[in-house]
Amino acid sequence: MREAYTDQLDSIFSDLVSIARRVERAVHDATESLLTGNVELAEQVISRDAVIDVARERVEDRAFSLLSLQQPVAGDLRTIVAALRMVTELERMGDLAGHVAKVARLRVPAVAVPPSAEPTIRRMAEVAEVMVHEVAGIIENRDIDGAADLRKADEEMDDLRRNSFRELLGSGWEHGVEPAVDVALLGRYYERIADHAVSIANRVIFVVTGEHPPKRDD
Amino acid sequence: MREAYTDQLDSIFSDLVSIARRVERAVHDATESLLTGNVELAEQVISRDAVIDVARERVEDRAFSLLSLQQPVAGDLRTIVAALRMVTELERMGDLAGHVAKVARLRVPAVAVPPSAEPTIRRMAEVAEVMVHEVAGIIENRDIDGAADLRKADEEMDDLRRNSFRELLGSGWEHGVEPAVDVALLGRYYERIADHAVSIANRVIFVVTGEHPPKRDD
Repeated sequence: MREAYTDQLDSIFSDLVSIARRVERAVHDATESLLTGNVELAEQVISRDAVIDVARERVEDRAFSLLSLQQPVAGDLRTIVAALRMVTELERMGDLAGHVAKVARLRVPAVAVPPSAEPTIRRMAEVAEVMVHEVAGIIENRDIDGAADLRKADEEMDDLRRNSFRELLGSGWEHGVEPAVDVALLGRYYERIADHAVSIANRVIFVVTGEHPPKRDD
Repeated sequence: MREAYTDQLDSIFSDLVSIARRVERAVHDATESLLTGNVELAEQVISRDAVIDVARERVEDRAFSLLSLQQPVAGDLRTIVAALRMVTELERMGDLAGHVAKVARLRVPAVAVPPSAEPTIRRMAEVAEVMVHEVAGIIENRDIDGAADLRKADEEMDDLRRNSFRELLGSGWEHGVEPAVDVALLGRYYERIADHAVSIANRVIFVVTGEHPPKRDD
């Protein structure tokens, strides 16, 4: 009984890891479509989001049946509830990748990000993608040491966001209103993906230690 | 035993209602501070957000102890898990109200929203506030009929967001980049508050009927 239970819990966590890998790919492809104006790739990211939604439902169903059939206590209970919350955040990260792809699609055949803003947006996207990659590993191995790297990456994201604002609100910005609005919203989407990654890592810390890490303002 | 259990569940829902009322006030005051450039009020909204965070922790602790001590099944289990998710969304709505207040604070002594954009932003804020008000009632009375009104309000929010973009990206926009970026991000914050309100209403529907309403894209 106990063994079957652990198997089911492990299988929920495998599903979470596989969703995180899908989100990682969505962030990667959305960025690629954004920076190259590749509308087919943008469409793929947008339509593939439905797969993440279905996978989310599967995790929810399995977690609920584990909760109601097995009556877990203490640590296991915490783990299942954390899984339910993590899957909500992963789905949301997938939505945000979809938002990036929609900005790309809206501006085709042009590219939404003007050349001068590209390095910052590209770096934000890289940081977000690496964070999603790391969070998949943190879920997979319940590795709370990795969470510290994630917080460091999140600080870089905050710095990038500030730089981006400085750039688009500065006197050197010559691209007008529309690209400024696009860049501001894109920055917001990548920043939120990073926030969710940190939040998921914090949930893993809670599962492993029983302690909530202090909340950061976002 | 069963009676004590129902009391505890009711008391979690009362906490959720009281948090929703706090969020409603936060949205109201954040908008007031935004449209009048009232920095003291903006500071109050930002500092009062900590109260919502503490209330969220209280709900989480109580829901966890109910889950682990009472071993609920089926409907009750669904209700407690829904409460845990609703409180996360309410906290997030409080954060978003805080973001509005921070935009207000950033532009003081000026007002972030230029006069021509004010009617749309004001209406978005009103719709968001009404939606938070309604969602508090929906939680309080488990009134799923109210959820239909909420979806209608959310459609108005989407229209307002589209109008706002049309305005700030149109040739008539004479306020430059900074107010455009502020208005675009403010629109995003109010839209997300509305999305969370709809999502909470959907969770109440799930608690009452056991069925998930179809997901809308946001």
